[in-house]
Amino acid sequence: MAASSSSSLCPNRALSISASSRNRHTQLTSLLRLPASTSSISSASRISFDSKKRNFAVRASAAPVMDHSTSASSSSPTVPSLVEVDLGNRSYPIYIGSGLLNQPDLLQRHVHGKQVLVVTNTTIAPLYLDKTIWALTEGNPNVKVESVILPDGEKFKNMETLMKVFDKAIETRMDRRCTFVALGGGVIGDMCGYAAASYLRGVNFIQIPTTVMAQVDSSVGGKTGINHPLGKNLIGAFYQPQCVLVDTDTLNTLPDRELASGLAEVIKYGLIRDTSFFEWQEKNMAALMARDQDAFAYAIKRSCENKAEVVSLDEKESGLRATLNLGHTFGHAIETGLGYGQWLHGEAVAAGTVMAVDMSYRLGWIDESLVKRVHKILQQAKLPTSPPETMTVDMFKSVMAVDKKVADGLLRLILLKGPLGSCVFTGDYDRQALEDTLRAFSKS
Amino acid sequence: MAASSSSSLCPNRALSISASSRNRHTQLTSLLRLPASTSSISSASRISFDSKKRNFAVRASAAPVMDHSTSASSSSPTVPSLVEVDLGNRSYPIYIGSGLLNQPDLLQRHVHGKQVLVVTNTTIAPLYLDKTIWALTEGNPNVKVESVILPDGEKFKNMETLMKVFDKAIETRMDRRCTFVALGGGVIGDMCGYAAASYLRGVNFIQIPTTVMAQVDSSVGGKTGINHPLGKNLIGAFYQPQCVLVDTDTLNTLPDRELASGLAEVIKYGLIRDTSFFEWQEKNMAALMARDQDAFAYAIKRSCENKAEVVSLDEKESGLRATLNLGHTFGHAIETGLGYGQWLHGEAVAAGTVMAVDMSYRLGWIDESLVKRVHKILQQAKLPTSPPETMTVDMFKSVMAVDKKVADGLLRLILLKGPLGSCVFTGDYDRQALEDTLRAFSKS
Repeated sequence: MAASSSSSLCPNRALSISASSRNRHTQLTSLLRLPASTSSISSASRISFDSKKRNFAVRASAAPVMDHSTSASSSSPTVPSLVEVDLGNRSYPIYIGSGLLNQPDLLQRHVHGKQVLVVTNTTIAPLYLDKTIWALTEGNPNVKVESVILPDGEKFKNMETLMKVFDKAIETRMDRRCTFVALGGGVIGDMCGYAAASYLRGVNFIQIPTTVMAQVDSSVGGKTGINHPLGKNLIGAFYQPQCVLVDTDTLNTLPDRELASGLAEVIKYGLIRDTSFFEWQEKNMAALMARDQDAFAYAIKRSCENKAEVVSLDEKESGLRATLNLGHTFGHAIETGLGYGQWLHGEAVAAGTVMAVDMSYRLGWIDESLVKRVHKILQQAKLPTSPPETMTVDMFKSVMAVDKKVADGLLRLILLKGPLGSCVFTGDYDRQALEDTLRAFSKS
Repeated sequence: MAASSSSSLCPNRALSISASSRNRHTQLTSLLRLPASTSSISSASRISFDSKKRNFAVRASAAPVMDHSTSASSSSPTVPSLVEVDLGNRSYPIYIGSGLLNQPDLLQRHVHGKQVLVVTNTTIAPLYLDKTIWALTEGNPNVKVESVILPDGEKFKNMETLMKVFDKAIETRMDRRCTFVALGGGVIGDMCGYAAASYLRGVNFIQIPTTVMAQVDSSVGGKTGINHPLGKNLIGAFYQPQCVLVDTDTLNTLPDRELASGLAEVIKYGLIRDTSFFEWQEKNMAALMARDQDAFAYAIKRSCENKAEVVSLDEKESGLRATLNLGHTFGHAIETGLGYGQWLHGEAVAAGTVMAVDMSYRLGWIDESLVKRVHKILQQAKLPTSPPETMTVDMFKSVMAVDKKVADGLLRLILLKGPLGSCVFTGDYDRQALEDTLRAFSKS
């Protein structure tokens, strides 16, 4: 489980260089379309719906590990890895790589009008706002860039803060052809996206996510919105960006806990649908924890590919997309029980994943070896493997009773079933297993 | 120009009865699809785009007047007239007729979940809220109907009032399958529609417009939103309803000024694209002013058909749809100059239409006879034919300078050109004509 050396875990660069001499866009795009390609960087997934059991079953077959022998480093600008999110006429590219904010063309090709509004926060602005403005304007003096700097944190993801974005857009006379750019983590992405969806009934939108969580989760799927005092993400829109630019250099300034939090989602993709990606993570977790740029670029790319494939099949979350919530039902109870902001989202998801895995094992759906592997990889990522001691069985039950996935009084859960990489979304399970898991992980 | 007798101006009922024995839905739907049908109730329009002049030209050919001889009255429930708005998988029907709120099936077939939130205002609630709740629940006891009553008026079309809708939806635990029903005029429709677009990232939406303006304008096109302190309709979404139900009985309680205001938009459709509809209005304006139900049902249906055809061709307002704004650029200047709420929207549009027609005549694009007909029909509708005396040339110019239709510094206008029923959207006109019109209708 030790990390490979840095030079040997650079599959994304190897891919990008080899692909750049051909039609990279078309080539990579095809990987995300069904029937799944058997390309060396994409897992071939089998997705089936059992209408009798009302379950989605997602089963990823093994994907060969990449040949790293051609991944020599280069002094020329990084050729970004590319993930194309395939949503018909709302498809968009995700660019991933080191130093991408040093490549003005990448952003500028997606800015159509002459006005840009960068939405960021007080933490990110001192670090990356100037660089972003440079990337938007370098060699492009006709574009006018304004910015609005919001307070940082989930508690500001509300209507009052959102109005500051509208105020700035209107005061600076942004027109229908303007572009809103989200520079920051998930909160900024969600708020800026919803503002873009609503301003003049919809303007262009670009995301520059600066946290692992935003890069591997918010960057795909088009969910935007704000919180209401009575609940999270209750007001918003499905709205797709023009492009997402992931400059892995921004991870250099990310706090350790934030970094680990994002890895909880990365690990999730391996568990629910991508065996070879999970195996790659087992070999490379130390490199990820050491913030190895190439390892991160690969992990982000593979995560985005997995999510993009799921979202392409189920944009509005009717079933399959729910499998992306492995560990989230238990995790949401932890977040609510502790109060938002005590544990980071990924930390709660990590503990929730352990609980979902425990329950899957109690049901006899997975082997003990998989339980151990999940524990081990989460520990390597310095993520929690149990909920905080203050959580009680009743605290879990009360939050889970109002989960969005309750249908006709029955709580549906995402559970692992079968070999690594396979999961189900189901309400068809023995209630005693849930009871036993809750008692094993929390006070009565 | 006197009105025909009531029984002879009932083309919609004649149509509905004859169509009800066949597949009415399919039959009527086809009327709004291109190529334009030559059916007896639809005008066949020729729409062309002159790329050299950057103009859209819309020319409606004469449509035969309907044979009213079969329009016998009946004691059975009104078979509603139907207009299908053709927007692919977001298409929806508009039902039009007297007593439609007495037919629970019409609404209930478009409510999918078990929860409904009726959004209305303090003026409409005492008149039609109980009836609407009855129509939603009669024979359907499993549906839970909540309501939220907002203050009445354009000045409340803001974020603060919108939040009251979200508050109610969340407090009453509306889920993703709930339906929001807008019961009221344009302000209620716009706010409820935007709330439906945003709540849980989009829930079902039904419109029950109770003003002529909302019935002939807001009911087609999917524009929803709220005002910002710095401008009207700056925050919103394009969001289509499941259906629109126009019960013409609601016009019985509409104030005279509101009624006339809506007629300004009805007259507009005739002028820009529907010769025979304008001629019908000339014959039937007295009946409309007397609130003849059948005359109104026909006028509303024909207006919705015209708007639906334009919107189907240009949903996101890239050019053709702008022609629906005849008189609105001058009218907007009047509304802004006086302060919103002094003149009703349709009153300002009426005066603006006279100014656009005057300018078209100065350019030599239309005959003097058309100028006179426009004056006469607006006077019959008791609408203003000139702006208020306080308006100055500079007041017009300052508002028109920031109009959304300014492109590259050039103000584009909707002007009549050619025979009745033809218009252009163009920036290619003699500036002196605009100057002369402004001077003729306002103080220096």
